[in-house]
Amino acid sequence: MPCQSSEKLNEVVIEAKKFTKYGKVADYIPALKKANPNDLSVAIYQPDGTCISAGDIKKKFTLQSISKVITLALALIDCGEKFVFKKVGYEPTGDPFNSIVKLELNNPSKPLNPMINAGALAVTHMIKGHSIEDRFIRILTFVQELAGNSNVAYSQEVAKSEFESSFLNRSLCYFMKQHGIINEDVEELLDLYTKQCAIEMDCLDLARIGLVFAMNGVEPTTKKRIMPAEVARICKTFMVTCGMYNASGEFAVRVGIPAKSGVSGGIIGAIPHRFGLGIFGPALDEKGNSIAGLKLLEILSTKYSLSMF
Amino acid sequence: MPCQSSEKLNEVVIEAKKFTKYGKVADYIPALKKANPNDLSVAIYQPDGTCISAGDIKKKFTLQSISKVITLALALIDCGEKFVFKKVGYEPTGDPFNSIVKLELNNPSKPLNPMINAGALAVTHMIKGHSIEDRFIRILTFVQELAGNSNVAYSQEVAKSEFESSFLNRSLCYFMKQHGIINEDVEELLDLYTKQCAIEMDCLDLARIGLVFAMNGVEPTTKKRIMPAEVARICKTFMVTCGMYNASGEFAVRVGIPAKSGVSGGIIGAIPHRFGLGIFGPALDEKGNSIAGLKLLEILSTKYSLSMF
Amino acid sequence: MPCQSSEKLNEVVIEAKKFTKYGKVADYIPALKKANPNDLSVAIYQPDGTCISAGDIKKKFTLQSISKVITLALALIDCGEKFVFKKVGYEPTGDPFNSIVKLELNNPSKPLNPMINAGALAVTHMIKGHSIEDRFIRILTFVQELAGNSNVAYSQEVAKSEFESSFLNRSLCYFMKQHGIINEDVEELLDLYTKQCAIEMDCLDLARIGLVFAMNGVEPTTKKRIMPAEVARICKTFMVTCGMYNASGEFAVRVGIPAKSGVSGGIIGAIPHRFGLGIFGPALDEKGNSIAGLKLLEILSTKYSLSMF
Amino acid sequence: MPCQSSEKLNEVVIEAKKFTKYGKVADYIPALKKANPNDLSVAIYQPDGTCISAGDIKKKFTLQSISKVITLALALIDCGEKFVFKKVGYEPTGDPFNSIVKLELNNPSKPLNPMINAGALAVTHMIKGHSIEDRFIRILTFVQELAGNSNVAYSQEVAKSEFESSFLNRSLCYFMKQHGIINEDVEELLDLYTKQCAIEMDCLDLARIGLVFAMNGVEPTTKKRIMPAEVARICKTFMVTCGMYNASGEFAVRVGIPAKSGVSGGIIGAIPHRFGLGIFGPALDEKGNSIAGLKLLEILSTKYSLSMF
Repeated sequence: MPCQSSEKLNEVVIEAKKFTKYGKVADYIPALKKANPNDLSVAIYQPDGTCISAGDIKKKFTLQSISKVITLALALIDCGEKFVFKKVGYEPTGDPFNSIVKLELNNPSKPLNPMINAGALAVTHMIKGHSIEDRFIRILTFVQELAGNSNVAYSQEVAKSEFESSFLNRSLCYFMKQHGIINEDVEELLDLYTKQCAIEMDCLDLARIGLVFAMNGVEPTTKKRIMPAEVARICKTFMVTCGMYNASGEFAVRVGIPAKSGVSGGIIGAIPHRFGLGIFGPALDEKGNSIAGLKLLEILSTKYSLSMF
Repeated sequence: MPCQSSEKLNEVVIEAKKFTKYGKVADYIPALKKANPNDLSVAIYQPDGTCISAGDIKKKFTLQSISKVITLALALIDCGEKFVFKKVGYEPTGDPFNSIVKLELNNPSKPLNPMINAGALAVTHMIKGHSIEDRFIRILTFVQELAGNSNVAYSQEVAKSEFESSFLNRSLCYFMKQHGIINEDVEELLDLYTKQCAIEMDCLDLARIGLVFAMNGVEPTTKKRIMPAEVARICKTFMVTCGMYNASGEFAVRVGIPAKSGVSGGIIGAIPHRFGLGIFGPALDEKGNSIAGLKLLEILSTKYSLSMF
Repeated sequence: MPCQSSEKLNEVVIEAKKFTKYGKVADYIPALKKANPNDLSVAIYQPDGTCISAGDIKKKFTLQSISKVITLALALIDCGEKFVFKKVGYEPTGDPFNSIVKLELNNPSKPLNPMINAGALAVTHMIKGHSIEDRFIRILTFVQELAGNSNVAYSQEVAKSEFESSFLNRSLCYFMKQHGIINEDVEELLDLYTKQCAIEMDCLDLARIGLVFAMNGVEPTTKKRIMPAEVARICKTFMVTCGMYNASGEFAVRVGIPAKSGVSGGIIGAIPHRFGLGIFGPALDEKGNSIAGLKLLEILSTKYSLSMF
Repeated sequence: MPCQSSEKLNEVVIEAKKFTKYGKVADYIPALKKANPNDLSVAIYQPDGTCISAGDIKKKFTLQSISKVITLALALIDCGEKFVFKKVGYEPTGDPFNSIVKLELNNPSKPLNPMINAGALAVTHMIKGHSIEDRFIRILTFVQELAGNSNVAYSQEVAKSEFESSFLNRSLCYFMKQHGIINEDVEELLDLYTKQCAIEMDCLDLARIGLVFAMNGVEPTTKKRIMPAEVARICKTFMVTCGMYNASGEFAVRVGIPAKSGVSGGIIGAIPHRFGLGIFGPALDEKGNSIAGLKLLEILSTKYSLSMF
């Protein structure tokens, strides 16, 4: 197990924190600009229920793209693997996460995987419910259950800010609507999607979610199964092949664990059978991943041989 | 001058009409499906005000992409060449008219030319006016003036049908909004654009518009200048380089005149200093051009040496 | 007729020459680097056999991409329009002249037009002859006939320099060989192609070639037909739609004449029924066209209303 | 450990073999066409030196793309991680393994990863040695050492057949030469590369190589270290993210082990710390992977929980 103590973990945070200065806080969603680029916090949740952490762990952040893994799990529960992957592919891509090019060039049109924006929007489209409100409550409740924290909520400010500025996601949605990949009202889907991205928590909550994935869908202290093992496995696979935008391949070589980042600076990690990880460091590299968060994971991986490969 | 008489023109129509059976009426805009695929009509308007025609010339059709030339003229009048081509390029493209790929791959993002959908939407965005209604009235009035027919109106049914189904155009608009090429409300712009596409006329009206372009912007019988010569020249240039979707190059070789087609089956032609042409033949080839209309132009061009080259 | 006298033409050259300082001599073919970026010369050849010129008209330059028009003419004579356009398309492209992307993305693989490198290589592949030597002599003799100058030869130095450095053209050739567009030995084809590109002349020779195209294939003083009118017409069409690399659309708007440029800084022009043009100005803009040559054409076109549109 | 006995393994082979009829033997390399599409064999090599196998395990096949993993290991040993990844990227791609598009569109031009053809050619280019012969002997000797079999050789017939027909690889090489990614003679590099692809073995040899990767570079019975642990780890990572052409993502979800396929129908597997796998089944699916081999791995993975995720 990495870092027997919070003190040791803190040393790693201090080392990794030096790299925050090379990154930049996301600015394309206005509400994210307020984050402090120097922040870095991490929590490690173990199967026995203990948790070590370091940094300013009370800081909250929104899930953003991290939510893609969670809605993928819920869509797989709702619709089954076969249905989901009829609409969304399995393949990693060398294109940026918000690229539309392959939707036009591939025939039939199909988002390459559920971790790029087009794929994630198609996945959210599959989440069942009587209304947008109902579907959002289902997503939020699922997140609360995974985090073991019924206080998890979403930031209305961030959701609104993102809803108003996400023209590219609208472009992706309409393109997919043209090709029958989605068929609901785009503004409604965007409303749901931006709320999902705006779910807010701290790195302890996130580490707890990571732990459930690490333990194949079972919350280890209560032994409660939150999702089928198969679903957890599929999600972890995508976290390895596509979790870090178009730096996923390099991350697999350098760190080698299932993980998913978001432009808020959060990173979730799920080390199979071992532990869950939650990181928050809002200064991003040019590919949209937490720059100090990646460094922190690289140090941990090297120090404690975390790579699965 | 081609075809001294309607009789001779009629012979050409009969010959070209045989090709209607190899084409198909556009089906992606529901309201266009009703057209009779066997229709073919043509009108030739000469500077002296005489007009010869053949086929069922009373049939009306909507302008669709033909309107792109007209709004380009109006935008050039409204904003000037420099402004227009800061937002939209000059270059023909080997991509389909509704392609989004180059908007992502080109840096900075910019529609390649005003004849593809992205470019035409950006051009309509430039049309001045206090409101959507006002801007549409300006477009319609301009069309009426060009056609010398104040009865020209738009088809509410076609506009509505197109507005409801044009997801791809919405995708293009939001992509351009993301990149600052357009900055107005997308639904409003689409409302304006689909109305512009739904302006309805017969082939005589269209030939009269062609004549004004052919005469460098002057209506020859009244001598009234409707647009600057420079604007007419620019429009005719784009009709040659980009007027027939991604069959423009082949059309330039086979026919060699400034012309623009629409998916309704209309084609406008503007033979410099000579005459204007209006064609309606709703059966389309696989690139979206009137199949018998192209044949008709090919016959005329060969018979009367119309090619500019 | 533009410029009644060499004096007036000289004034235009002086004005256009100021723009040479914004351009750069081609450096990707080592032998071209030696050109003097300040050079600018022009010749205008008229049907009555008179020629006016300005600038240092004795300077020689290699044809480079200008040769694409000439081999297209010869291939059309050798193989006919149908055969040629089964292998090479008619359509302009928004991609760079040396792009390989569309060869992979289009199905079946086919160069978009004969003016991009892939298309020109496929065209040269069609030139008939018993051997590379024989085929080259046929091309050279054709050029001599067009130029009315049996002293036109090729630069061994430039051909060799280009042959040794044209890795991209080899890449295009092998890609096309894979797809059955060409089936001869690539090194041999490259040998032939680089020699064709290295044919050398001055701007008077070039203007004479332009005149033959302008007069539909007939040399006007001798009345000798050098190519069928149909072939001359097709070539002029491509000069308008694709003659200036991916600045062809802008050139059509600004100048509006059939013309073809080469990276040596040469430009051929063929104003239908009026005159031929030869320009040499080796300083290029970023798209590979003679920067002062374009300016010169723009001035002439505005001053003497040369645009066909 | 999967399959305690060859009998049980044989049952799996019988089940998987039914799928050979849905596949097709590779035909683009003439010499590969001779393979029997019904063949299927598998060997599992364990750290204690025992090996179980099933099917006609004496059948030999060439490595083809499987060799990409081995030359990557050798290049990492020769040049170090930093140097290798300056020339070749880390990222999986949604494009086909022989695609050239991204080499043009990405700036700077760089093969996306070492498992696509462009990347593998760039990797082979890095293998050190005084001559092509010397470099090939180094590769072959490395393969023999990994396989623990000094009789491993290459098929001259396959190498020759591939050398003569690999126009696409030449196209990729010249494109990379243009961009300075490789700078040696292309024909020589192709000679080396096609020989490497033509190295021949049976599935027992291949399983032994897989075992060395599985054991982090150490041959477990002799305890000899054949490559640094770091190198073995990097290779296994690419086997997960890019090992099955553009079906790698689906394979990761369905099977979840480091593996690499070749168009000969071979598949190498390296289950970390557990065992090595060698499969031969020449009938391929449309993405170029052994169709029955994939099925076999899917059955084994489900039955014995092999997935790493």
